[in-house]
Amino acid sequence: MKRGLATLFILIISAFPSLHAQNGVPYAVPGRPLAHRAAIDSAALLVERLMQKSGAPGASVTVLLGGKTVWSRGFGLADVEQQVPATTLTRFRIGSVSKPLTAAALGLLVDEGKLDLDAPVQRYVPDFPVKRWPMTVCQVAGHLSGIRHYRDGEFGSQRHFNSVAEALTVFKDDTLLFEPGSKFSYSSYAWNLLSAVVEGASGESFLAYMQRRVFGPLGMLHTVADHPDSIIPFRSRFYTRSDSAGGVLNAAYVDNSIKWAGGGFLSTTEDLARFGQAMLDGSLLTSGTRAMLWRTQRTKDGKETGNGVGWFVSTDSTGRTAVSHTGGAMGGTAYLLLYPREQIVVATLLNSDRSIINARKVGEFFLRGAR
Amino acid sequence: MKRGLATLFILIISAFPSLHAQNGVPYAVPGRPLAHRAAIDSAALLVERLMQKSGAPGASVTVLLGGKTVWSRGFGLADVEQQVPATTLTRFRIGSVSKPLTAAALGLLVDEGKLDLDAPVQRYVPDFPVKRWPMTVCQVAGHLSGIRHYRDGEFGSQRHFNSVAEALTVFKDDTLLFEPGSKFSYSSYAWNLLSAVVEGASGESFLAYMQRRVFGPLGMLHTVADHPDSIIPFRSRFYTRSDSAGGVLNAAYVDNSIKWAGGGFLSTTEDLARFGQAMLDGSLLTSGTRAMLWRTQRTKDGKETGNGVGWFVSTDSTGRTAVSHTGGAMGGTAYLLLYPREQIVVATLLNSDRSIINARKVGEFFLRGAR
Amino acid sequence: MKRGLATLFILIISAFPSLHAQNGVPYAVPGRPLAHRAAIDSAALLVERLMQKSGAPGASVTVLLGGKTVWSRGFGLADVEQQVPATTLTRFRIGSVSKPLTAAALGLLVDEGKLDLDAPVQRYVPDFPVKRWPMTVCQVAGHLSGIRHYRDGEFGSQRHFNSVAEALTVFKDDTLLFEPGSKFSYSSYAWNLLSAVVEGASGESFLAYMQRRVFGPLGMLHTVADHPDSIIPFRSRFYTRSDSAGGVLNAAYVDNSIKWAGGGFLSTTEDLARFGQAMLDGSLLTSGTRAMLWRTQRTKDGKETGNGVGWFVSTDSTGRTAVSHTGGAMGGTAYLLLYPREQIVVATLLNSDRSIINARKVGEFFLRGAR
Amino acid sequence: MKRGLATLFILIISAFPSLHAQNGVPYAVPGRPLAHRAAIDSAALLVERLMQKSGAPGASVTVLLGGKTVWSRGFGLADVEQQVPATTLTRFRIGSVSKPLTAAALGLLVDEGKLDLDAPVQRYVPDFPVKRWPMTVCQVAGHLSGIRHYRDGEFGSQRHFNSVAEALTVFKDDTLLFEPGSKFSYSSYAWNLLSAVVEGASGESFLAYMQRRVFGPLGMLHTVADHPDSIIPFRSRFYTRSDSAGGVLNAAYVDNSIKWAGGGFLSTTEDLARFGQAMLDGSLLTSGTRAMLWRTQRTKDGKETGNGVGWFVSTDSTGRTAVSHTGGAMGGTAYLLLYPREQIVVATLLNSDRSIINARKVGEFFLRGAR
Repeated sequence: MKRGLATLFILIISAFPSLHAQNGVPYAVPGRPLAHRAAIDSAALLVERLMQKSGAPGASVTVLLGGKTVWSRGFGLADVEQQVPATTLTRFRIGSVSKPLTAAALGLLVDEGKLDLDAPVQRYVPDFPVKRWPMTVCQVAGHLSGIRHYRDGEFGSQRHFNSVAEALTVFKDDTLLFEPGSKFSYSSYAWNLLSAVVEGASGESFLAYMQRRVFGPLGMLHTVADHPDSIIPFRSRFYTRSDSAGGVLNAAYVDNSIKWAGGGFLSTTEDLARFGQAMLDGSLLTSGTRAMLWRTQRTKDGKETGNGVGWFVSTDSTGRTAVSHTGGAMGGTAYLLLYPREQIVVATLLNSDRSIINARKVGEFFLRGAR
Repeated sequence: MKRGLATLFILIISAFPSLHAQNGVPYAVPGRPLAHRAAIDSAALLVERLMQKSGAPGASVTVLLGGKTVWSRGFGLADVEQQVPATTLTRFRIGSVSKPLTAAALGLLVDEGKLDLDAPVQRYVPDFPVKRWPMTVCQVAGHLSGIRHYRDGEFGSQRHFNSVAEALTVFKDDTLLFEPGSKFSYSSYAWNLLSAVVEGASGESFLAYMQRRVFGPLGMLHTVADHPDSIIPFRSRFYTRSDSAGGVLNAAYVDNSIKWAGGGFLSTTEDLARFGQAMLDGSLLTSGTRAMLWRTQRTKDGKETGNGVGWFVSTDSTGRTAVSHTGGAMGGTAYLLLYPREQIVVATLLNSDRSIINARKVGEFFLRGAR
Repeated sequence: MKRGLATLFILIISAFPSLHAQNGVPYAVPGRPLAHRAAIDSAALLVERLMQKSGAPGASVTVLLGGKTVWSRGFGLADVEQQVPATTLTRFRIGSVSKPLTAAALGLLVDEGKLDLDAPVQRYVPDFPVKRWPMTVCQVAGHLSGIRHYRDGEFGSQRHFNSVAEALTVFKDDTLLFEPGSKFSYSSYAWNLLSAVVEGASGESFLAYMQRRVFGPLGMLHTVADHPDSIIPFRSRFYTRSDSAGGVLNAAYVDNSIKWAGGGFLSTTEDLARFGQAMLDGSLLTSGTRAMLWRTQRTKDGKETGNGVGWFVSTDSTGRTAVSHTGGAMGGTAYLLLYPREQIVVATLLNSDRSIINARKVGEFFLRGAR
Repeated sequence: MKRGLATLFILIISAFPSLHAQNGVPYAVPGRPLAHRAAIDSAALLVERLMQKSGAPGASVTVLLGGKTVWSRGFGLADVEQQVPATTLTRFRIGSVSKPLTAAALGLLVDEGKLDLDAPVQRYVPDFPVKRWPMTVCQVAGHLSGIRHYRDGEFGSQRHFNSVAEALTVFKDDTLLFEPGSKFSYSSYAWNLLSAVVEGASGESFLAYMQRRVFGPLGMLHTVADHPDSIIPFRSRFYTRSDSAGGVLNAAYVDNSIKWAGGGFLSTTEDLARFGQAMLDGSLLTSGTRAMLWRTQRTKDGKETGNGVGWFVSTDSTGRTAVSHTGGAMGGTAYLLLYPREQIVVATLLNSDRSIINARKVGEFFLRGAR
């Protein structure tokens, strides 16, 4: 037993480079926040345990209740080699949480009268080859189009693409997997096509439109495309774990220009939470358009897919409705969760690809406390 | 020649990445914010020049327009010895900008029906000696009470006080400088007395009340009393400048427990801006109470003092009304500025006591752009 | 049992802000040093456990064998608030390990023919009052003079002294505790007097002499007086532990100008090791002078004190001779250990005053491996 | 006017503490090193101006005189995105300064009697194809073998090679450029072949041999192969400059496993200086072997190449003999310079590939001062 404890000790010590970067909340200070203290303590323990178990060096979490930030802090390290703490300014790879951001652009274009979700994609992207069957923008967004997902090493592509159009070449000539509408099959490449739709409908480059219409107006100062060569302040380093040795490793190099719209943005939990709040309070989209993004689509045989446009929609056992998206990237995972009725937003980010911080569990602590 | 110097300056600034700790805003990145770009560039140059001229190592600025963050970033270093960059998470000494925060507590107690600003202070602080003339809470708050300000080395006091009551002993037995109401004479000690008023009216310790009713509800996670012994994440180090040598020096040691209410808090520009916004949008106080805090008081002879309760109020040459407060501390200065009609909030913080970032000039750039 | 493990987990997590700043030695890298690997692993575990148990945030250790650096690394944090890792560049308070450094100055002055250790101190410090009995420089250095040590709060003095002469005023007029030579009684103030001796013998200010003759020639680039106002790159922050709460606290403010010679220097383990090596290899002092510093003095009744001039000398159970000094300061402890025959130097520094890294235990690991 | 600009430059430099990451030397401190002060100030200005002009974010320099460190400090930033200062612990890419390190391995094998420099390479690397003409180890080392250098994008290769043998496949079957001995043609691939020679002669893997026989014994704790996936504490980030925009960019990703022996190590200036000193003082190699490494080879027609084995040898206009090597890598440059007669070692490292710190100019300041 004594030996067991010693081993445990060693394991724990090795797993955590710097667990207590308590950067969001002071400790040993009179006047510590009383509100939500139990929720905060429980959630912090959840995050710390997950980091320990999975060997993830750094994380960030933000929780809003009724539009107010009730918890926001970084954990561990943004950079293990330089021993830099992760803070709420640290930019992580958000992977597929990029999709709800891109979906907001689609919604704005609908509200501007420039986009019809039921039109065939070729109306906005004339260069995209006509396939055996037609496909609408909505089907493409809802993973119903039959466009294939990554294969082989494409998830970790190191090739640089200079434009959205260039990135389409990877898959545009491939055969559809099935007739659009007949099946749900998750595809990040479908979202590459949607960034071309944004360009066609807006007459602007995709990244410029995102900045001008989504990130700028919402004050998302820390959300940018993950350009490898640009100097991006407080960009996290990215990690994975050795299968054999169990130790932390730098994640393999990747160039995310292959997938800005579906998985290529960097962001902070505070920016994602700000975005989630804007979705909740209706300051970004008309309520009709928002409803459209949050309504589950159906396959031709009437089965709900659980996915609207850029968001997954679900109802849990207590009858609570959640709209959310998770994300995975080389060296990072992400979770953005909204409970519209309860007016709660939870955003979690991790700089390792071997685990994910379950935003539902985090939210649960705060919902319990709020009752 | 002048042009040559300006060019040189620009060249030097551009050449050194470390000068451009653009931690709030990426650079050399496609999709850089278009909105307010000219204002941001001008304001950044203003801050950098001031830092250069005054030898201030670090700074932070946040600007809100219509409730949205349009600019927020740190400049330079939070810690020169350790070469730690200043970010929007860096906590600076805010000096007298503590007064508007304390004023919010007074306002909340009025709204709770627990405080009458026109009552004599002794109603809430029975231990405070009755003086030759009576004085109301409002007069104490408006620097009209005749309570003296710091003298000699009291500004840099190194003595630790365990309670608000203990800190009153420094001045409570001193003679009033004049009959209350007859003159305006700025006094931080008067605000020590007001923290005792908060304790008397609320039945809670001052710091606990501030946390529970002001900082907690507004999500001001980074605002705390500047306890020297507590570990306070991302607390800036504090600097001054050698009069003779001109070089940067560590500021002299100080224990701010002598003046929590009037000058002892640490905060970030984002927390101060959040506070300012809550004052603007009326989410903290009733509009009647807010009006009372923002209405200039008058001396007995009817002269406006330009000071309400915890705020200075002024109208500039263009007819614009500003409510604001500046702050000075050992190793730090602060400026919080609100234009209620224009819905703009500007908060600036510096970790040197030899200069101050003029929030009016910063605001001017953004107002000009917004027209 | 499960609960026990969870508790252990929490304890461990809380105790270690950042244990694995493996800054001296890479990990998960092919080609890791094979030499001394077992010794390094054991010593690292010893340091980490001590830090955990005592709540010390940061440490540094350097070990030389036969004049070569075989281990040198920082542990944990130099600055908890800013989460800055401790490295071999971090400057710690070395407390009384300042005495061996000052002793080197005495030795150099002997070698220069400017100082006679057997002369009365007043020959070099005419202003020092003649006492009831005479006292030699050697007696003062050997804690045999009867000059008193700190009393009351003098260890944590916050007063600034502008010169060595000014710092003498604290004790110079006090009565001797006993007749010089009759007893051993450790006194840091005696070493203040020795810095005045250095000034008198050299005609130079004490700090200038130390720099010109000791630190400069030995390449001790990181050893300086702990001036509170000067910007000293990579100066550690200093910590203690709350007796009641058990948490880490910032150490109380202190101004060490009261005791440069006996306890006021900042240094790194690499600088201390470099100094130790220069003592070992005879590059600093003549062998006769070195022998004098390392020869235990005796009280009048012939009893060995175990202390020479600035060094403690001892022989352990295995017959190994050690010369060493430990140090304690507000927020720091230090240990410098030399085994002259074995040609080993161990220097350890900690930024908390609640524990000390036992250099003998560290050395033991390396001696064992070297056999 | 010119003088005015120079003054302004000095003022600006002095005004910004962040420019003066004086991590090796304190400033504004009594007792600043008097020795070499003018040399240090001049050399620092040289480095700062070069960084400014070329946009290099970070640098490190170490100078030894007569075996003592007289100057050692980092400049600027090791990591621009995270704003981490460069220190003497920062590991830079040393590019071809890897060759003198590998040359030491060759020398040690000669001293161990395991290697004959005049033997054909195939004696130690039987798998290396016999070419049209024979070639000796010495010719391969002296860039006289006709083995080709990088072509096309090979300098920036992103491919991972699991062994020295695997990396040979890139060029081993290519035709020699000329008959060995007939011409000097710089080739890093020739040094890949030499790492296979080290393996053949020692029976150990190249990296293990380097660690066990070179880095370990010399205490070069911070010199390792630049594995992209390993966590390597204090590894610098690497930079280049945009040709068009002029701004700093992250250097392109590179996997240096193609060239450990000729250009793949990370090191610090202090480790390189330690290595240089060991070459100077003869503690690593016998003097005969060292002479062989430092003797310029000749082409068959008797012309001196200026290159021995892993070192360039030259005599300047004042008759001073220098042995040195420069290095270039993706995002880094290096210069290691020894004046054997003057007993001076200068090592400089930069984390940008757009400039190099001229070690000769740095050395000149110190030589001038030493006269």
